[in-house]
Amino acid sequence: MSTEIVEEQKVKVAFLPIGDTEVELLESTEEDGPIAKFIEKRGEGIQHIAYRVDNIEKAIEELKEKGVRLIDEKPRYGAGGAKIAFLHPKSTFGVLIELCERE
Amino acid sequence: MSTEIVEEQKVKVAFLPIGDTEVELLESTEEDGPIAKFIEKRGEGIQHIAYRVDNIEKAIEELKEKGVRLIDEKPRYGAGGAKIAFLHPKSTFGVLIELCERE
Repeated sequence: MSTEIVEEQKVKVAFLPIGDTEVELLESTEEDGPIAKFIEKRGEGIQHIAYRVDNIEKAIEELKEKGVRLIDEKPRYGAGGAKIAFLHPKSTFGVLIELCERE
Repeated sequence: MSTEIVEEQKVKVAFLPIGDTEVELLESTEEDGPIAKFIEKRGEGIQHIAYRVDNIEKAIEELKEKGVRLIDEKPRYGAGGAKIAFLHPKSTFGVLIELCERE
């Protein structure tokens, strides 16, 4: 297991590998961080599901063409230097979905 | 993708393999089924996470010894003839977790 603080997101993350999947635990480092706000509003639980993609710009383009609403129309950087982008839960039956491209 | 109806659970399931993980889509076949009730109460979204285990009876025993509360103290049968058991979300930070043993 590895842990890392992502300052930009005010979050401490731990990745637990299970086969070729990982469970990511998220802990807010600040009271006003996005994860702190999520827990305040909805309680602890499953926050999001991430799918690894080979080319995030291409994946975003394909989803946009299909009419899927995105939170991030351009990728930003997440834990481990990965390029990430979130889809809008309104387009995904209330499930927060992340796209993730990393080495 | 394969779909299957599990009469006992009043649910139609579809499994979408991603690497050695699967996304399971659940649709209630009856208005009073457990999935219909879940959606009525909490809306669409992520319902549970399942971990495959080699020996479900042993996994249940280990969790009980650790004081984890279980919904199913004995396994029952789920989609594809798998032996399954749910942990109680009170013991798992609100996340519904399933253990699953199958061939």
